[in-house]
Amino acid sequence: MVQPVHDVVGLGSAIVDIIARCDDGFIEAQGLTKGTMRLIDAEEATRLYAEMGPAIEVSGGTVPNSCVGVASFGGKAGFMGKTAKDPFGEIFAHDLRAAGVTFNTPPTQGSAPTARCLILVTPDGERTMNTFLGAAAELSSNELDPALIGDASHLYLEGYSFDGPQAKAAFYEAATIAREAGTIVSLTLSDPFCVERHREAFLDFIRGSVDLLFANQSEVLSLYQTDDLTAACARLRTDCALAAVTCSEKGSVIVTPGDLIEIPAEPVARVLDTTGAGDLYAAGFLFGRARGLDLRVCGRLASIAAAEVISHIGPRPETSLAALARAQGLI
Amino acid sequence: MVQPVHDVVGLGSAIVDIIARCDDGFIEAQGLTKGTMRLIDAEEATRLYAEMGPAIEVSGGTVPNSCVGVASFGGKAGFMGKTAKDPFGEIFAHDLRAAGVTFNTPPTQGSAPTARCLILVTPDGERTMNTFLGAAAELSSNELDPALIGDASHLYLEGYSFDGPQAKAAFYEAATIAREAGTIVSLTLSDPFCVERHREAFLDFIRGSVDLLFANQSEVLSLYQTDDLTAACARLRTDCALAAVTCSEKGSVIVTPGDLIEIPAEPVARVLDTTGAGDLYAAGFLFGRARGLDLRVCGRLASIAAAEVISHIGPRPETSLAALARAQGLI
Repeated sequence: MVQPVHDVVGLGSAIVDIIARCDDGFIEAQGLTKGTMRLIDAEEATRLYAEMGPAIEVSGGTVPNSCVGVASFGGKAGFMGKTAKDPFGEIFAHDLRAAGVTFNTPPTQGSAPTARCLILVTPDGERTMNTFLGAAAELSSNELDPALIGDASHLYLEGYSFDGPQAKAAFYEAATIAREAGTIVSLTLSDPFCVERHREAFLDFIRGSVDLLFANQSEVLSLYQTDDLTAACARLRTDCALAAVTCSEKGSVIVTPGDLIEIPAEPVARVLDTTGAGDLYAAGFLFGRARGLDLRVCGRLASIAAAEVISHIGPRPETSLAALARAQGLI
Repeated sequence: MVQPVHDVVGLGSAIVDIIARCDDGFIEAQGLTKGTMRLIDAEEATRLYAEMGPAIEVSGGTVPNSCVGVASFGGKAGFMGKTAKDPFGEIFAHDLRAAGVTFNTPPTQGSAPTARCLILVTPDGERTMNTFLGAAAELSSNELDPALIGDASHLYLEGYSFDGPQAKAAFYEAATIAREAGTIVSLTLSDPFCVERHREAFLDFIRGSVDLLFANQSEVLSLYQTDDLTAACARLRTDCALAAVTCSEKGSVIVTPGDLIEIPAEPVARVLDTTGAGDLYAAGFLFGRARGLDLRVCGRLASIAAAEVISHIGPRPETSLAALARAQGLI
């Protein structure tokens, strides 16, 4: 068998995060729902930014964060997503390439700026996200790279793509290319409100096309409109060959038609910022799967990566995940 | 006596920092001198950025960092400096105002972008800076706010201003306004290479116009072209009524014509990034002086602020300096 060129190729939103700390009162005063993501327009982005405290800017985006995580494990990752020709677009492209991720999507020619996500981090480390999609919504099917997808072990998609009609079409097209090429299709549900917005389309897509699903507890409960996780996992078993459900500090559960494997969370001295926790969990799991590792090892790699990213501000690893995994004898 | 409106009003470069970690080999391969600042042009900024690893963007600049520090102690600070009408300019202005610092200088109408400083942080926490001044060099005397300067307790200037002819003229003009209004004039020497470039002008200015001088050990040795710190401090005593000389982990010395006061460094569990250490030292000292506190207390406040900023990535405090000072019974 020929070794795939990339372990993971991702398609999703190219975003720069603007991260500020705030107290719970600010979240409440702004009428936000802590721990979730909402879409905002340019005007609301300007208004909210003016209200926010001093911030840092750092490249983000669910799928790009996961791709950087795969690279940090020593894997090969590629990303397809749309930036604009502006300073934030340059920052995004630089940080992705500097992390070793293949990124060749040209910036838009349009006037929409590179996507930004205003992230508010409360003292408990929880993040509340406000995303202005801008140029990220403009990725079209024409700009997919079929060779990149076809030569990868795993394609990785995000539910957020359903929030832009053009991005959604590209999402479906990428999955079709992957299936025809024998590339494994994986998906993250992204956010409980995103599931709420696109439940039926997600269920159809999962049943028909997804080989590996990532979701957190809230998302999978929203998907099946239940508050019983056991019932939701039972539904998952019939809908999907493999799923990983994360439950924050309680760890995660790997769900297969024949098995439920519980993976403990990796201990963290202090949770500073949960931004990127799910993204990095997916990174570890995808890297493990692409390298043919045992499901339990995949879960451990996922937990290690998630623990690293929540122990500091920012959604991408600051430590070599390969070194952390080696220290535990996992790779 | 009427209480001054601002404790500190600063004049200097408005800069956004782009901070990446690197190893010592990278500093060597790039031919850089660790721990110093060099000026670069737009072309070199593009070249070096492409070579750097993944980065974070965060507002910086010596004087703005100090102003934010003063505000974090509960003081009132104002800043005058030039940005461009671009995303980095917006970031800079937002972060300064969100920290409570008065900032009313309009952005340039020109084509030079907002200044950026490419900062490389080695595993020992030392920072090596590469500054593209862009719009920051365009502050002109016309844009100074005499009322702001005149109503302040302290004016705070940076040696870096001497690197731009227009900024240098504004620097002299600000000092003249301050002296005429009875505002105390303080100066930081900025960098040993900056002292090298402007030694005679600095000495003239210090002797004629500076009430309070900030310098680190390398800068004061460069100023007097000696490798004997005792000799340099003896010279300082005749040139300046009050100086604070920082010596990294060895603490600092407050130099007056009649006294030498040693201030211990505040213990730090782990030095992550020394960017802003001198700036925050000056913040604590200036806040203390503006509030009429004893010199030893000023030194302690300075040390606390420096210790806070080197314990994390980025040049501005992440913790309330007022709270840290209160915890030690200093304010």
